[in-house]
Amino acid sequence: MRNFKVTLEYNGSNFHGWQKQTGKRTVQEVVENAFSLLTGESVSVEGSGRTDSGVHALGQVASVAFENQIPIEKIKDAVNNFLPSDVRILKVQKADANFHARFSAKRKTYEYVVQVGGQRSAIKHNLQGFYPFEVDLQKMTDASKLLIGKHNFRGFCSSGAKVSSFERKIFDIKIKKNRHIIKFEVTGNGFLYNMVRILVGTLLDVGRGKLTAQDIQKALETGERKYAGKTMEACGLYLKKVEYEKQN
Amino acid sequence: MRNFKVTLEYNGSNFHGWQKQTGKRTVQEVVENAFSLLTGESVSVEGSGRTDSGVHALGQVASVAFENQIPIEKIKDAVNNFLPSDVRILKVQKADANFHARFSAKRKTYEYVVQVGGQRSAIKHNLQGFYPFEVDLQKMTDASKLLIGKHNFRGFCSSGAKVSSFERKIFDIKIKKNRHIIKFEVTGNGFLYNMVRILVGTLLDVGRGKLTAQDIQKALETGERKYAGKTMEACGLYLKKVEYEKQN
Repeated sequence: MRNFKVTLEYNGSNFHGWQKQTGKRTVQEVVENAFSLLTGESVSVEGSGRTDSGVHALGQVASVAFENQIPIEKIKDAVNNFLPSDVRILKVQKADANFHARFSAKRKTYEYVVQVGGQRSAIKHNLQGFYPFEVDLQKMTDASKLLIGKHNFRGFCSSGAKVSSFERKIFDIKIKKNRHIIKFEVTGNGFLYNMVRILVGTLLDVGRGKLTAQDIQKALETGERKYAGKTMEACGLYLKKVEYEKQN
Repeated sequence: MRNFKVTLEYNGSNFHGWQKQTGKRTVQEVVENAFSLLTGESVSVEGSGRTDSGVHALGQVASVAFENQIPIEKIKDAVNNFLPSDVRILKVQKADANFHARFSAKRKTYEYVVQVGGQRSAIKHNLQGFYPFEVDLQKMTDASKLLIGKHNFRGFCSSGAKVSSFERKIFDIKIKKNRHIIKFEVTGNGFLYNMVRILVGTLLDVGRGKLTAQDIQKALETGERKYAGKTMEACGLYLKKVEYEKQN
């Protein structure tokens, strides 16, 4: 078997998320079909993690393995020919046999794009979230510091997630504003269900003055969802980067 | 009856164009439904012209009339509450009884956005066209001058259009390039079926060196479609502005 690390971009608007589900259009299935058509083998594609319906990716990573001897530098264009226009392969790299896009991942970065105030853009309706209030950037930046580090993020995830631990480590949160658009970039060692969307909703509520730094402290200490802000829409969320140890 | 001039923005990706068709989701129907819900009347909405499936609008204009006495300054937000996120009312203005969005229109401006070269963006797959070759901006700008003025544009429209005349006047063509993105802005007194998409395809073919200024001359003189370039995809086209005489 030849093993590959494949980096992908997709617009999640017309997908029922990453993970295969019978009878639904998913990114995983569309990409598996393209690799299978190219190689004539039944190829399985394992992502670094699921993305929900409507969530986009600028740099999803997947492990792919097959026997076909097509030269590595030809794989990208050949697979893209079999893909619909809302998914593109950006990069194909050789990987070790023990590389696994999910289990080998060390850090993930998500970006959340939101329009604050004004009238919601119809053109970009499925490429950015919307928050109808003006917000104070400094308040949000200050509050974001409380989230950095290793914490129990139970208060910042949606119920229904089956996980053995709610502890996650956030390495960095960057917040940039350009007129009506705010971009949040959150890097961590992993994320709970809806965690980024809730973190962003909480920071926006702080920026608007509806929540305070104290509410964030309470959500972290008690693990209770009620202290955090609202879950932002899926359409503003982008899986931007997945990092691995070494050059994998 | 109260008469209004209504300016609209929409993302055409999930619409079967502007014009109502039984059993299909169209912009006209969605907007009529919203006005009807607001007013409790059966409101008809007449656009400045049709846009095809997948074509967007930054400034479509429609005539709307109803009896309901809601204050004019409240109409925009009230209707937007009834609209899906891919259509927004931008402006509502009082109009004369004889104002007709289609028949009173004097000038229309379309914008065509295209990614040239590189790998096609998956994120913006339905917001911009794609042209896989590098192009010479100066060659395109020079060639565009030949199209300005009053001409028989039969060679620049798709067959199947029922029109009494192929004569149209183009006032201006602006071409701007920013890295991989080229924007064409075309202003005219009216456009034939697929005319902007064919004009842009022709200019890109000139920019690539596949066609020459002479081919444009031939298409204008003979009215034969074969001399012009290819029809670009609908997804890159935006109806940007519709102008009327006086402040209508």
